[in-house]
Amino acid sequence: MSGGGYGIALLGTGTVGGGVIEMLRDNAGLIERRCGKRLRIVSACARNLDRARAKLDGDVLLTSDWREAVGADDVDAVVELIGGTDAANDIAGASIAQGKPLVTANKALLATHGETLLAEARAGSVPILFEAAVAGCIPAIRVLRDSLAGDRIDSVLGIVNGTCNYILTRMRTGMEFSEALAEASELGYAEADPSLDIDGWDAAHKTAIIAWLAFGAPLGLEGMPVGGVRSAEPADESYARLFGYTIKQIAAARRRPEGIESRVGMALVGSDSKLAGVDDNLNAVLIDADAAGEMLLVGAGAGAMPTASAVVSDIIEAASGAAEAPPGNGAGDILPGGEASCEAYLRVRCPDTQGVVAKISAALADAGISIEAMHQNESRSGELTDIAMLLHEAKWRTFEGIAAKLAGDDDVSGEPVLLPIAVPHSS
Amino acid sequence: MSGGGYGIALLGTGTVGGGVIEMLRDNAGLIERRCGKRLRIVSACARNLDRARAKLDGDVLLTSDWREAVGADDVDAVVELIGGTDAANDIAGASIAQGKPLVTANKALLATHGETLLAEARAGSVPILFEAAVAGCIPAIRVLRDSLAGDRIDSVLGIVNGTCNYILTRMRTGMEFSEALAEASELGYAEADPSLDIDGWDAAHKTAIIAWLAFGAPLGLEGMPVGGVRSAEPADESYARLFGYTIKQIAAARRRPEGIESRVGMALVGSDSKLAGVDDNLNAVLIDADAAGEMLLVGAGAGAMPTASAVVSDIIEAASGAAEAPPGNGAGDILPGGEASCEAYLRVRCPDTQGVVAKISAALADAGISIEAMHQNESRSGELTDIAMLLHEAKWRTFEGIAAKLAGDDDVSGEPVLLPIAVPHSS
Repeated sequence: MSGGGYGIALLGTGTVGGGVIEMLRDNAGLIERRCGKRLRIVSACARNLDRARAKLDGDVLLTSDWREAVGADDVDAVVELIGGTDAANDIAGASIAQGKPLVTANKALLATHGETLLAEARAGSVPILFEAAVAGCIPAIRVLRDSLAGDRIDSVLGIVNGTCNYILTRMRTGMEFSEALAEASELGYAEADPSLDIDGWDAAHKTAIIAWLAFGAPLGLEGMPVGGVRSAEPADESYARLFGYTIKQIAAARRRPEGIESRVGMALVGSDSKLAGVDDNLNAVLIDADAAGEMLLVGAGAGAMPTASAVVSDIIEAASGAAEAPPGNGAGDILPGGEASCEAYLRVRCPDTQGVVAKISAALADAGISIEAMHQNESRSGELTDIAMLLHEAKWRTFEGIAAKLAGDDDVSGEPVLLPIAVPHSS
Repeated sequence: MSGGGYGIALLGTGTVGGGVIEMLRDNAGLIERRCGKRLRIVSACARNLDRARAKLDGDVLLTSDWREAVGADDVDAVVELIGGTDAANDIAGASIAQGKPLVTANKALLATHGETLLAEARAGSVPILFEAAVAGCIPAIRVLRDSLAGDRIDSVLGIVNGTCNYILTRMRTGMEFSEALAEASELGYAEADPSLDIDGWDAAHKTAIIAWLAFGAPLGLEGMPVGGVRSAEPADESYARLFGYTIKQIAAARRRPEGIESRVGMALVGSDSKLAGVDDNLNAVLIDADAAGEMLLVGAGAGAMPTASAVVSDIIEAASGAAEAPPGNGAGDILPGGEASCEAYLRVRCPDTQGVVAKISAALADAGISIEAMHQNESRSGELTDIAMLLHEAKWRTFEGIAAKLAGDDDVSGEPVLLPIAVPHSS
């Protein structure tokens, strides 16, 4: 191998790519001591060549054609950091076809084309490593794959989107959604187009990866209810708190007797639960395994350097002899969203007239849903008031049915708010 | 290989060993899917053969002679769970000499004979795996070794002894030490002889492993101040709380410009810090790395099944092709305990006479120590009162000097209480 060491094709030299370049340079000695090899970027692909050139050593082959970067001499592994699912998929396919380990931070790629890529990788015995794709530097992937390799995982609850977590944390102070989003944008926590984050799709991609790794579920979004934080209102947080809960954007994957349940969206978590205190733009993953019990991992879920740290750990794993993509647990089918049972929070806004509570209670009873706790705001007669309820366990489909029914009721103002209560398996 | 699969010699079939037997049996299918091999206990060593026989399949070679178990046919890896540092060291040596991967949960073995064993293992390219030796199922070892392989680790603060954490948590309610210890024993959280736990030695062994893994420090207790919780008093917790802190038993390993600082003992942590909320018998490890930032891992630090989960993950790693013991960072020397600087908490008990505070303040000023905050208990004249202080950063040696001087003062009753304030690197 000319030049020696372990050669890397770096596709994408932006924020995270820049962090990878920096770490490989600054920690070169430390990395060589730890993995026994010198890691060397031999080729790089970038859109803005001038900006990329300034970050890279002079001997790196720099090109705007990914094929040239992947196919360069001395490339031992391909690091895909360009994002998206089109070119990234071609790059991943080429990397696997050439027998070169693929390191990627691209959750959308895995959630979209993962099944095919993994099948190709398994057929060719090519490792695919993606620690950075879920929750930044939090070692969710390694813990699910390696640390709990002999354990039966029962549930994974995650706060895996820092933008949503920041927005909901700020809204706890009474701030409105739009104001909290503006603040998140100002601080660089939200993208220019924040919809991938705040509508739950980013978390959904991560949840798909988690459910596949933990339970052998098919890698995709099928059957997964996906919600975001756009409809969050400070009022609901204060009602949740009265009941001993707080509202978080939760990525959940659980083993149920009937199949694997995956879900993304706002949910109530107990105020004294391990996830309740994970605030601001922090990420967290709470794993419940049969033998290990509950394990919480908290850290930076995004940002150039934390993400780069995870990418570099994967490059080192590849350089050291690396693992293949695991076959998963083969635990069974995906449970269609509505089929899973949970306790739920329901809030209805309506005029403060005598009969309304009785009417809502009767509708719930008719649907076989029983009320665990109820709070009604004080208000003057004729004004709108909020009725917030905790509901005993039922199928999500049943809750959705009653929410839809209430939405159509003339006495109800606007959409009722329906949120699941998220609990780890063992609780 | 007769019988097929991956053969294990299991040395020790007690609490954790029994858990390993159970997991390998109950999760056999899941493990085979994940690592591609069937794991099979081929031999076992136990003191009580009858009790061991009842746990094991009939075809397992059961003996009370570890040599026979290790040397049995078809043994691919040796799992040492007998504890202690004598026979365990012989077992480890034999395993390495025979080229068989060693899995151990034995922190005392590693902290005592680790340097020799690791040198032998490196020379023979034999993996030594010990995830279960530090903080039970919390993946502290894998995170330091794999997840942060390319990162510069700056500090590791741990709550790595569940017995101490339980005792201090209970003492926050005003309970005395002896009562909290009795409760911990009753719940099975404290051993019959609790001194290894409550005097800090168990945590010290773990800290040595952490400092070696994170910083390449020599594997041993040299230069490490080790303290326990025997001297804990509810009063100090309440003064700490007045200052915005809580008292925890902390295992600390930090990179300092002058060398590696390791320390075990009670310390103040900020009430809003990530470690403050880790209560009861939970363990936690807070890692601060240059690129990744702060990462918190929380989980069960002991118990049969959580520890077994970590042991089985190591067996699977060995069976899958496994890693060698890493060479460490080679970051430099151990800093003798007294040389490291920190902020500190000092509490002096003395008669409530006019001149005493002035005298103590003068003694501190003479030693170059300045007071950041002070609290004096209300008391009637002539009675003993407590003066609690937060002290600005100074060398630990300087604090120890002033504490010794005050202990010898006729106006001071009993030993002054001196505790460091523990902060992650980045704080």
